[in-house]
Amino acid sequence: MQNDRFLKACRREQVDCTPVWLMRQAGRYMPEYMAIRKKYDFLTMCKTPELAAEVTLQPINRLGVDAAILFADILLPLEGMGIDLKFAKNEGPVISNPVRTIQDVEQIRILEAEEATPYVMEAIRLIRKELDGRVPLIGFSGAPFTVASYIIEGGGSKEYKNCKTLMWKAPEIWDALMDKISQVLLKYLKAQIKAGAQAVQMFDSWVGALSPDDYETYVMPYSRYVLDALKDEGVPVIHFANNASTMLESVVKAGGDVIGIDWRINIDAAWSRIGYDKAIQGNLDPFTLFAPPELIEEKVKRILEMAGNRPGHIFNLGHGINKETPVENAIALVEAVHKYSKR
Amino acid sequence: MQNDRFLKACRREQVDCTPVWLMRQAGRYMPEYMAIRKKYDFLTMCKTPELAAEVTLQPINRLGVDAAILFADILLPLEGMGIDLKFAKNEGPVISNPVRTIQDVEQIRILEAEEATPYVMEAIRLIRKELDGRVPLIGFSGAPFTVASYIIEGGGSKEYKNCKTLMWKAPEIWDALMDKISQVLLKYLKAQIKAGAQAVQMFDSWVGALSPDDYETYVMPYSRYVLDALKDEGVPVIHFANNASTMLESVVKAGGDVIGIDWRINIDAAWSRIGYDKAIQGNLDPFTLFAPPELIEEKVKRILEMAGNRPGHIFNLGHGINKETPVENAIALVEAVHKYSKR
Repeated sequence: MQNDRFLKACRREQVDCTPVWLMRQAGRYMPEYMAIRKKYDFLTMCKTPELAAEVTLQPINRLGVDAAILFADILLPLEGMGIDLKFAKNEGPVISNPVRTIQDVEQIRILEAEEATPYVMEAIRLIRKELDGRVPLIGFSGAPFTVASYIIEGGGSKEYKNCKTLMWKAPEIWDALMDKISQVLLKYLKAQIKAGAQAVQMFDSWVGALSPDDYETYVMPYSRYVLDALKDEGVPVIHFANNASTMLESVVKAGGDVIGIDWRINIDAAWSRIGYDKAIQGNLDPFTLFAPPELIEEKVKRILEMAGNRPGHIFNLGHGINKETPVENAIALVEAVHKYSKR
Repeated sequence: MQNDRFLKACRREQVDCTPVWLMRQAGRYMPEYMAIRKKYDFLTMCKTPELAAEVTLQPINRLGVDAAILFADILLPLEGMGIDLKFAKNEGPVISNPVRTIQDVEQIRILEAEEATPYVMEAIRLIRKELDGRVPLIGFSGAPFTVASYIIEGGGSKEYKNCKTLMWKAPEIWDALMDKISQVLLKYLKAQIKAGAQAVQMFDSWVGALSPDDYETYVMPYSRYVLDALKDEGVPVIHFANNASTMLESVVKAGGDVIGIDWRINIDAAWSRIGYDKAIQGNLDPFTLFAPPELIEEKVKRILEMAGNRPGHIFNLGHGINKETPVENAIALVEAVHKYSKR
């Protein structure tokens, strides 16, 4: 590995400077990405290993980030489960057969990930070959709650009314669904690691809609099931629970070697609550990249200062990079992180 | 005052049981409300004191809550500022002339509230008369950041990109705008108190989009300006910053006799960070009202237990009540709070 800063930081080892990558770094803010996206729809890009590999590598070349993250979508495992997934124009994912009854849950299949999503594993093998040891490759999945929220709501949601109502009114259906989803996600992440992912991240993007009690009762056991079972796979696991820093202690209990945090909390306060036996990832507000370069620099320095020179900080945004972000600002961010964190 | 539980709790005095009211309690989940809403559009209802008074009183009669809250909208002061506000069908507020330049800010007028929103003050006088001392009346406004976010974005927003970009790129425009908004909101709340509001709440509904640093730099001074200036008005002030419990200490620094919290944090953890010299309001997930009655009861008991028998707890939802909420569950909630908190 030519650049192993990211993996070292995941293991809380000393590094020459703080590693940085950006959530959704392979995305629409890059002209190189849009050139391909114009020719193919989103799902086709996900399902064509050569295209997925190409866009995965774009930010490595352009931004100089310290890790690649697989180009994919957290909902790709749905198809193999027998759930019909489409991406409507500008509307995000649409699921025509949302799951709400025990019969719906019973119909969900649990396939091997190489059978359900062979193109993902093929993309990983291809990316590893093309990266040729330049930087490590991160695989990823959604977390059980976040995936369940799409499956129950039938797409994205603002308030998770159906999801919460099912959870509270029919806990037996909820548990059966979460159990199946967790099994699928575990198989999916294990297969990614086997195919060559050198770290994995579990995204609990929407779990911030829950109270701490509901998280502990209805969600934590399933996240923990997946995260516990990954402990022996030999790669670092990042657990990112978005908008959930009020229940950080519970998120940490669920597991993960690295805890990802959003920008709503100061990183020093977050790390002291997480415990210094875990690495931490974060946490610049993604919209900071619309600010003037001097302010971006100032905010990078502030986060680096708060994180201190303690080993185990991976710099990232607090959420995915926005599609209208000026590329030059993303480049400036990566440079600033490296420059101001030089040991 | 026949029922002064709410005002006593605001002042952290002993009460016979925990007072409860619900954010957006005068709203679409009530058939009585919908019967009127069918005949008039939303703005007409806000601007007709008799209608505003009628819907303000509906939940007092139906739910048995311990306070009335004025039926109004946080954006009503915009018209007097020279900002054009409409409510599009199912789309919420639309502002055709969003403010983005220093010229735009310069054009904003600062009128006396009795001149800008006479109908609000008239509604307050009418409600006080009709309430006839049964329960106290709460007035309210948006907080400077939340109002600014609508004015800059031109309506509701998910990510506040324009708002944040202006804040960071043109702090002099931001400050000029926030200064004017703060002056307008202060006049608005003072006029409500003069007209008869016996407590006021400042809603910072969208400030949770900010990092703690940005809150302290760009927002707190303005919220504090308004809250400080209300100290001598002789009524309790509730400060509710939604989705902002990761920066609760800063919210408390901005001011308020009562701090409102959403459901993303345990109320005991929140109160210990706020300090017991403040009262606290919250914090049931509003979607709990879609759960079975036994679970609603259980969750009410849990919040009451966490709050303890310490004086100064006002029970509320962690956010506005959802328009599809079954009325009988809202009634059951109010009953449960009174029943299980009896001293």
